[in-house]
Parts: sequence; C-alpha cells; structure tokens
Amino acid sequence: MPRVVRFHKFGGPEVLKLETLDVRAPGEDEVRIKVQALGLNRAEIVFREGKYLERDVDFPSQIGYEASGIVEAIGSKVSSCKVGDKVSTVPSFSMAKYGVYGDTAIVPASAVAHYPDNLSIFEATAIWMQYLTAYGALIEFGQTKTTDHVLITAASSSVGFAAIQTVKEIGATSIATTRSAEKKQALLDAGADHVIVTDEEDLERRVHQITGGRGSRIIFDPIAGTFLKDLADMAAPEATIFVYGALSMTSTPFPLMMALKKGLVIRGYTLFQITGNPERLARAKKYVFDRLQSGKLKPVLDKTFRLEEIADAHRHMQSNQQIGKIIVSVN
Amino acid sequence: MPRVVRFHKFGGPEVLKLETLDVRAPGEDEVRIKVQALGLNRAEIVFREGKYLERDVDFPSQIGYEASGIVEAIGSKVSSCKVGDKVSTVPSFSMAKYGVYGDTAIVPASAVAHYPDNLSIFEATAIWMQYLTAYGALIEFGQTKTTDHVLITAASSSVGFAAIQTVKEIGATSIATTRSAEKKQALLDAGADHVIVTDEEDLERRVHQITGGRGSRIIFDPIAGTFLKDLADMAAPEATIFVYGALSMTSTPFPLMMALKKGLVIRGYTLFQITGNPERLARAKKYVFDRLQSGKLKPVLDKTFRLEEIADAHRHMQSNQQIGKIIVSVN
Repeated sequence: MPRVVRFHKFGGPEVLKLETLDVRAPGEDEVRIKVQALGLNRAEIVFREGKYLERDVDFPSQIGYEASGIVEAIGSKVSSCKVGDKVSTVPSFSMAKYGVYGDTAIVPASAVAHYPDNLSIFEATAIWMQYLTAYGALIEFGQTKTTDHVLITAASSSVGFAAIQTVKEIGATSIATTRSAEKKQALLDAGADHVIVTDEEDLERRVHQITGGRGSRIIFDPIAGTFLKDLADMAAPEATIFVYGALSMTSTPFPLMMALKKGLVIRGYTLFQITGNPERLARAKKYVFDRLQSGKLKPVLDKTFRLEEIADAHRHMQSNQQIGKIIVSVN
Repeated sequence: MPRVVRFHKFGGPEVLKLETLDVRAPGEDEVRIKVQALGLNRAEIVFREGKYLERDVDFPSQIGYEASGIVEAIGSKVSSCKVGDKVSTVPSFSMAKYGVYGDTAIVPASAVAHYPDNLSIFEATAIWMQYLTAYGALIEFGQTKTTDHVLITAASSSVGFAAIQTVKEIGATSIATTRSAEKKQALLDAGADHVIVTDEEDLERRVHQITGGRGSRIIFDPIAGTFLKDLADMAAPEATIFVYGALSMTSTPFPLMMALKKGLVIRGYTLFQITGNPERLARAKKYVFDRLQSGKLKPVLDKTFRLEEIADAHRHMQSNQQIGKIIVSVN
C-alpha cells in the first residue's frame, strides 16, 4: 500500500505525517509515478504553515511539488509518456490536490517530464522548479544580455544556484549574495562571478564597485520587505527587479521616488507564469533539458534524508544551513 | 528687456515673481525663443515647492517646461531650426537652468520642436509633455494592444486626456476615472470608452464589470500611495501598472501578494525615459506630430491666464478644477 505524507492542520514540521493509503487508478489525464526521490522547496514550508498563495486546503492535505521516479500507470487519454518511463514532475498543479511527498504520486500528465539520461535520480528531482524559475525571470521576461549584471540575493537556495548557472550560460555577470562566509566557496564553485557576504561587507558599496557605479540591470530577489528599497538603490536605470518570494515576511514599501527617478520595473514573479502557459513552458523545458544534457546546467545537491525523516528534512530547510537542493530518498 | 518668472525660495504660488532681466545670446547649442504661450504642468508646482525630482536649485531659479513661440536667435552649432521658425519646447532639460516661464526663453536646441501648422499657438504649448508621456507608457513600454483595457486614473489632467486619445488611436478600450461628476462629460467628449466617477461609484466593482472580471491590462496612474494596492486588485494577470507621479504624497506600500499571485509589473515612469533617449524621442515625436496633423490627437485646453497672473494660474492648477491644459498667454 502506498505511503504518503499528509498533514491534518497547518503548523510546524511536526504536522507532517507518513500515512498508508489505498492506491487509486490515475484519471484519464493523470499519471501515477512510483517515486524514487523528492526535492524540497521553500514553498512547501509556507504551504504547510498556511501562508502560501494556495490556502484553500481540505484536510488532510497532501504536499510537495517535485518527485522523480518511474511511470507505473497512465490515464486513458495520456500520450506524452508510457509505463516504465523515467520522469520527474514539473510544479504546475495544486499541492492540496496532487502533493507528491510519498512513495506513490498521482499528477496531471501535463506535469510529467522526461529528464536527460546523464542525471542521477536525485539530480532529476532538483531541476524543474529551480531552472524553470531562473529561466522565466532571466530569459523569458528579463531578456538578460551579455553586458548585464545580475544581482542574485539569497543565492545559496536551489533557485539561487540555478540563477548563477543560467547567468553564466547567458554570458552575463552574476553578483551572488549570502549572509555568511561559509557558503561563499560553494557559490564561486557554482560559477558566481562575484560573491558578497552581507554579514561582513557593505552590499550597496560592493554592487556600486562591481558595476562601475551603474547598478545592476537585473535583480532577482526572494526576500522583499524593507530590503526592496535597498535593491532599488542598487539598481541600474530602467533595471528590472524580480521579486519572486516574501522571505522577509514583513511589509514591503514601494520605493516610489527611486522608481520614478530611475524608471525601475518591479515585477512580482512566480514559476506559474511559465508552467501555466504551454508555449512558454515548451521553450523553457527545451532550454533547460538541452543544457542539463550538455552539463552546462548541473544541480547542486545538499543533504539527503529518508522519507521517514520528512519532518527533519523540513527542519533542516528552515535552518537555512543548506547549500543547494535538499533531497529525500524514497525506498 | 525680457520679462522672466523666477522664484527666490521654495513655497506657494506667491513665490513666483515676474522680473526684468538682461537678454543674453544663446550658447552654441542653444536657441532663444520669443515666447507666445506657456502650458502649465503639475511638475512645476512640485518643483516650486522643492519636492520635485530636480531639487538642486540655485536661487533665484527659473521654472517651466512648455513654451511655444518664434525662434529669435540660434547658437553657432544649431542646424535643427532657424530664426523665424514656429516652435514649441519638449521638456528634456533642467528647469533650474532653462525654465521657460517668461516672454523670452533660452533652451537647448535638442528641446526645440516644430509643431503642425493646424495647431493654434495655445494648442502648440499643450502637446509634447502630455502626448510624449502617454506615448511612452502606452506604446513604447506598454505595447498596448487593441484587445486591452487601459485604466487611466486622475484622467482630467492634460496627460489624462492625452492618454484617452492615445488609447482611442490604438483601438484599445479606455476606462477613465475622475472624482466628481462635473468632469465626466468632458472625458466622454475626449473619447473615453468608460468614465467612472469615484465619489459616486465603486471603482473596483465597475472595473470588474467593464473588463468581464479580467481586470485592466494596463493601468496609468499618477497618484500612488495606498491607492496602488487598490489598483493591483483591479489589474489583469501580468498587467503593467505605470506609476508616473506621487500625487497622494503618502507612502506607497508594494502590493506584494497580489503582485506574486498575478505576476504584476509595477513600473516607475517619467517622460524623461523618452526625451533622454534620442531614438525613442524620434519615434515618439513622429507618432505625435503625424496624429496632431491628422486631427486624431487634439489638445484639450482649460482656462487661459496672462503672464502677470502666473501665481493665479498656479493656484488654479492646485485647485484641481481644471479640465485639460492650463494656458498662459504671453503679450
């Protein structure tokens, strides 16, 4: 019988329960996957706490966006994959309805993607969320050019590493920030052109130096809050600031005077702007697949937990100690 | 001897003084204009109060962006116009250095433009600020399509009327807002597809109705403040909100959750993003000139004051009673 992680109320990591459920057949447009690995996302913490964009939850609720494994059953209308295929999931569904934490997951067929053969099963579960998120901001919307500086804040998350690698692939110049010196080497190893340790260095002065006084043309930030004002100060004329999260959890003043003076573009951005649009998604998946295959994009993996340790895995994610993707090995 | 309006300290309309100055020859890249009419802009109130983007002022300071008249002298390097030409000024200079209020104005040659023959001298001073501002947001950056709704707030300003006419020319659907019913007919006469009187109607509900629940794809707003949150609620998915002023004079919270949910683009925008870029300016001027000539764009004029009444003209602008451009007749 499938073992699936569910929670019966919003709360801390302890609300996550590993439960045994009956298996069901996939619906006509659905696919059932025998899960071999999970990749964790910060969105799942926020969802578990009841603070996510998706809040309309019937308890008990499933949870989880990224799984990789083997297709074990497909619905009658599914033609994009077949039983036995090695696949991973693209986050483009309701977690309450389709959450993938467990040894078995049912997801919409549109959310199932093949991954390149050169990836391990762990790497395969650390690709779509992070690289599609970076692609959407930096390429689809930001149209980053080789002459641009890209400021990547909170850069040691999986999305941060994906952004660093994508900037390198574009040929632009990345400036990655991290709070403590411990993570600096990992960011340099991932290809960051500059790393600023914010506990030790004056962020604005360093961005000023690195950009020759011009400021950064693209800023990619999951923090928001009062930090947005600082980012506006570090932005180049007509820069775009992508705000893709709300980590600060404080209110966010709009930097109006600087926005007027510099003609700044401040965009709210999530992955769903890519995964919810078939044309954009097709472009994005091809871009990412090809570069994973050639080794130009390569997931950075953090610690691996077992499925029984899912609450500990969440605690680890909340500790902000991780460098790259936290993995859960299933079976 | 030239009569020029100057002010010796920041303050209310009463600080504006009509003074007699010696005439000077234009510099090699400058043009001297015998001014026949002035058009007033709200930026000039904010400049006079010391709250404008340009605050670095040596007193006494000149003031004013828009004049029309006859070229009476040109610098040695000027080839874009000649003595006797009928011209008006494009706001693309420091007011402290080149303010045009007076019967004589010296401005950079790059800020001098010919206007179509079919315009009166008053109309000629009510074109560049308003139409270039609307063009830049709606066409250059916003790329408004015929299927778009465009929400124009504070629509009875000269820029508001210009935006209504530009939306009509594009073939999109405008929704103009005004506080009181008095100005409604003038907005309809200018071509607004919908007018919402905000003192009498529920703005959000009406926008919802008009857009079939989708929200407005472009929003063009000079108010900001807490109103930005309301605008985010009225925005379509992936809408762009152009904030081109700070009329509310209160702090502006960034609507983060709605920006993330809808993928909203919130842009600080000023005319200087057009006038400071020769390629954009050339495109914009051609667009506006051609449509003024064909009558598709036509300035809406408010009251006319005499130069001696400049303080009263400013008081009138601050009263918010005007409909369209306030004019000052010179001589």
